[in-house]
Amino acid sequence: MDFSTEIQVRFADLDAYGHVNHATFFTFLETARTLVFKEPFLELMGRRLLLMIVQAECRYLKPVDLNGQVIVTMQLEKSRRTSFTLGYLVHDGQGTTFAEASTVMVCFDEKRGKPVAIADEMKRALGLI
Amino acid sequence: MDFSTEIQVRFADLDAYGHVNHATFFTFLETARTLVFKEPFLELMGRRLLLMIVQAECRYLKPVDLNGQVIVTMQLEKSRRTSFTLGYLVHDGQGTTFAEASTVMVCFDEKRGKPVAIADEMKRALGLI
Amino acid sequence: MDFSTEIQVRFADLDAYGHVNHATFFTFLETARTLVFKEPFLELMGRRLLLMIVQAECRYLKPVDLNGQVIVTMQLEKSRRTSFTLGYLVHDGQGTTFAEASTVMVCFDEKRGKPVAIADEMKRALGLI
Amino acid sequence: MDFSTEIQVRFADLDAYGHVNHATFFTFLETARTLVFKEPFLELMGRRLLLMIVQAECRYLKPVDLNGQVIVTMQLEKSRRTSFTLGYLVHDGQGTTFAEASTVMVCFDEKRGKPVAIADEMKRALGLI
Repeated sequence: MDFSTEIQVRFADLDAYGHVNHATFFTFLETARTLVFKEPFLELMGRRLLLMIVQAECRYLKPVDLNGQVIVTMQLEKSRRTSFTLGYLVHDGQGTTFAEASTVMVCFDEKRGKPVAIADEMKRALGLI
Repeated sequence: MDFSTEIQVRFADLDAYGHVNHATFFTFLETARTLVFKEPFLELMGRRLLLMIVQAECRYLKPVDLNGQVIVTMQLEKSRRTSFTLGYLVHDGQGTTFAEASTVMVCFDEKRGKPVAIADEMKRALGLI
Repeated sequence: MDFSTEIQVRFADLDAYGHVNHATFFTFLETARTLVFKEPFLELMGRRLLLMIVQAECRYLKPVDLNGQVIVTMQLEKSRRTSFTLGYLVHDGQGTTFAEASTVMVCFDEKRGKPVAIADEMKRALGLI
Repeated sequence: MDFSTEIQVRFADLDAYGHVNHATFFTFLETARTLVFKEPFLELMGRRLLLMIVQAECRYLKPVDLNGQVIVTMQLEKSRRTSFTLGYLVHDGQGTTFAEASTVMVCFDEKRGKPVAIADEMKRALGLI
């Protein structure tokens, strides 16, 4: 199952090189996650169940500027009891890929101070149940 | 003449208070400007004519979080030879106003190192000619 | 009473114009506030007493780039029962002023959902008692 | 050869979870690079030789908040003709590691539109010559 989100690129995302700063790509991924999984995400946050990033990586293929579209397409790559891995393509929807990335997220119970099984709301959103 | 832009709020825009950080409101205004005036803006930037902010102010009325829409509506408030003032409402399109703001921008010629008359492309976009 | 803080300028603070983005000046002010008032600030945040910005303004005099120092000097300009105004100079410590700014902050009790009298810890830090 | 830089953590670096946002770790690394290699970096940028990130990864071990120190220690892990890899520890200088990371950077000649051999100034700063 694929989830695609168009990202609104901001002038402030560009750095002095005139391209979107490399760190901001991770913000694009996060924005896509938060929009696609908005309901389970806010629901979990209300119960202090945090989806914490434990690993993130990105390969940058082509710079992004203010022209043209930026789309994040993501899919579930792997799931375990307390964590899951998402894979991402950052692209323009017309054949140009800007970056490939992945993040590993753990479901963390802030009150108990430890990882817990992925909440059912999130499992459903990920297509796991 | 009014220009309205919907802003894509990002999780990273929130600070530890759980609301969009106050400084980010100015980024919302900038994003709205850059989208509405995209063509003249990029055209001017190519000629190193910068639209530099010389004054900015914002009154915050209600916090913004990840729920609901954020729209920036702006209008030209005043224009002079080398500068102009834009006024903004940040609102949800349904009667709730988050902030009122204004910015003064000067058209600055980077090569000559001084303010110059507002370029015609920008004047046209602002409805001045 | 004056409080001065040196700001660590980041490459990502620069935008495509090659200068520190105008919105980031407000982040510089916030960084200075948070460092100078760190103890009362964290103490209040622990009790969900938020120092919310209700008004902010800045006049930009000279662009900031990666060369040279950036110092924020602030002072209390005005205080009322539930709010206070800080004034700021952003400068290089050697006679060059980058910006002049001010912010109005209200002490907001998140649990009660309304402004409350400035907490004593903060009053002491501001030199009010 | 190790290079260490203390990072000034900002309130705006925290997200709604109350920790430094994961994307901001890459900004911390960039800030460390820019400060340690400030002279060759600005010198190269003046000649439109960009140090572009082509790969970045981070493992997050412990959240960072506003308390305590944040130090980035980096070292050259590998060098090739046009690119090099830096490894990083983000830590508090007292035995706590927040994250381990690496970035691959390529020396890119913007005028010629292609990677070029790492400039001598940068090689010297990296201890390669």
